[in-house]
Amino acid sequence: MEQQTHLAGTVRPGGRTARVRAAVLEATQDELVEHGFHGLAMDQVAARAGVGKTTVYRRWGGPAGLVVDLMTELADQSAGHADTGSIETDLLANAYGVLNAVNDPRLGATFQAVIAAGTCDEEAAEALRRFYGRRIEEWAKVVDLAVARGELPEGTDGAEVIRAVSGPLYYRLVVTREPVDEAVAEAAARRVLAAARAGAFRPVTP
Amino acid sequence: MEQQTHLAGTVRPGGRTARVRAAVLEATQDELVEHGFHGLAMDQVAARAGVGKTTVYRRWGGPAGLVVDLMTELADQSAGHADTGSIETDLLANAYGVLNAVNDPRLGATFQAVIAAGTCDEEAAEALRRFYGRRIEEWAKVVDLAVARGELPEGTDGAEVIRAVSGPLYYRLVVTREPVDEAVAEAAARRVLAAARAGAFRPVTP
Repeated sequence: MEQQTHLAGTVRPGGRTARVRAAVLEATQDELVEHGFHGLAMDQVAARAGVGKTTVYRRWGGPAGLVVDLMTELADQSAGHADTGSIETDLLANAYGVLNAVNDPRLGATFQAVIAAGTCDEEAAEALRRFYGRRIEEWAKVVDLAVARGELPEGTDGAEVIRAVSGPLYYRLVVTREPVDEAVAEAAARRVLAAARAGAFRPVTP
Repeated sequence: MEQQTHLAGTVRPGGRTARVRAAVLEATQDELVEHGFHGLAMDQVAARAGVGKTTVYRRWGGPAGLVVDLMTELADQSAGHADTGSIETDLLANAYGVLNAVNDPRLGATFQAVIAAGTCDEEAAEALRRFYGRRIEEWAKVVDLAVARGELPEGTDGAEVIRAVSGPLYYRLVVTREPVDEAVAEAAARRVLAAARAGAFRPVTP
């Protein structure tokens, strides 16, 4: 089945429930990419997934419920943090990871659709908050490792470092609508590292 | 008329055309804030502005045309760059300016609606690119002044510094949906300044 190549790992052995979920989330992502959140219709998702409408309504409630579950699945599938032994290459790996995700036609369009939905739908906003919260928490560990190795000052805020690497890429992607390429990713990682080394990611002492 | 208090300066002396434009842009912003880009209807804007439908269709073409003109007007009205004599307080002024704009109920909702529109409409995306391009160009001058004063290294890229100050605020606002407060604004300005002082905003020499 085609969705296995897209949402790898969503089909767990033996479960009909898991197979239905994989098909529904795959169809949800297809519809989001093609029509955006405002064009996401439960009946259309059910038809595309080859699943009964009643099942979809009962299990996911509405379009926002589908988006919430899709973002949970995408977070489950996301790669763990890098561990190259150097904060410079770890942050670069994070920046490239964001770059590849936002420039991937399917994944990038999915993020943009959910980001658009988040501006007017509180459940979609909460799904974004949770998805990025999990990614930030995962990658913040590279900063803790760097502090332990003596590469960055004690007290450096890992979550803030990771937010600062991703921020400029998403700012260009959805706000200023400027290109996001390798040079942008490398510059983001390099600048954040310079600020972190200078101690600018430690708590401010009044 | 109410729109004069909202879109100050849009009513220029003596012009009926200017008065019509002010009323239509005011109504466009009202509708955007209330219904989002997908709910922006030409007829509704015309009715709200008290202007004939034919005029609105002929002059703005469609919802995207209204949004493009609204963003042009908002850019025209935006404050010029600070000039406090210190890059630290100039960047802080920029960060507070972004903070106040995104947290202003009317202006913040307008930006969010246009950002959402930009994810699926190329004209809206171009309006964003132009609006933020003008804001970045205007504020980049504080970096040139700082370089001239010897506060920052020669070759520091002003536009990139300004993007880096705004990025983390918008990233929280529309992507991670986390709160954007004074501490976030101050941290963004402080970290970018540390990186700029370290030379991380100069071109990379291979």
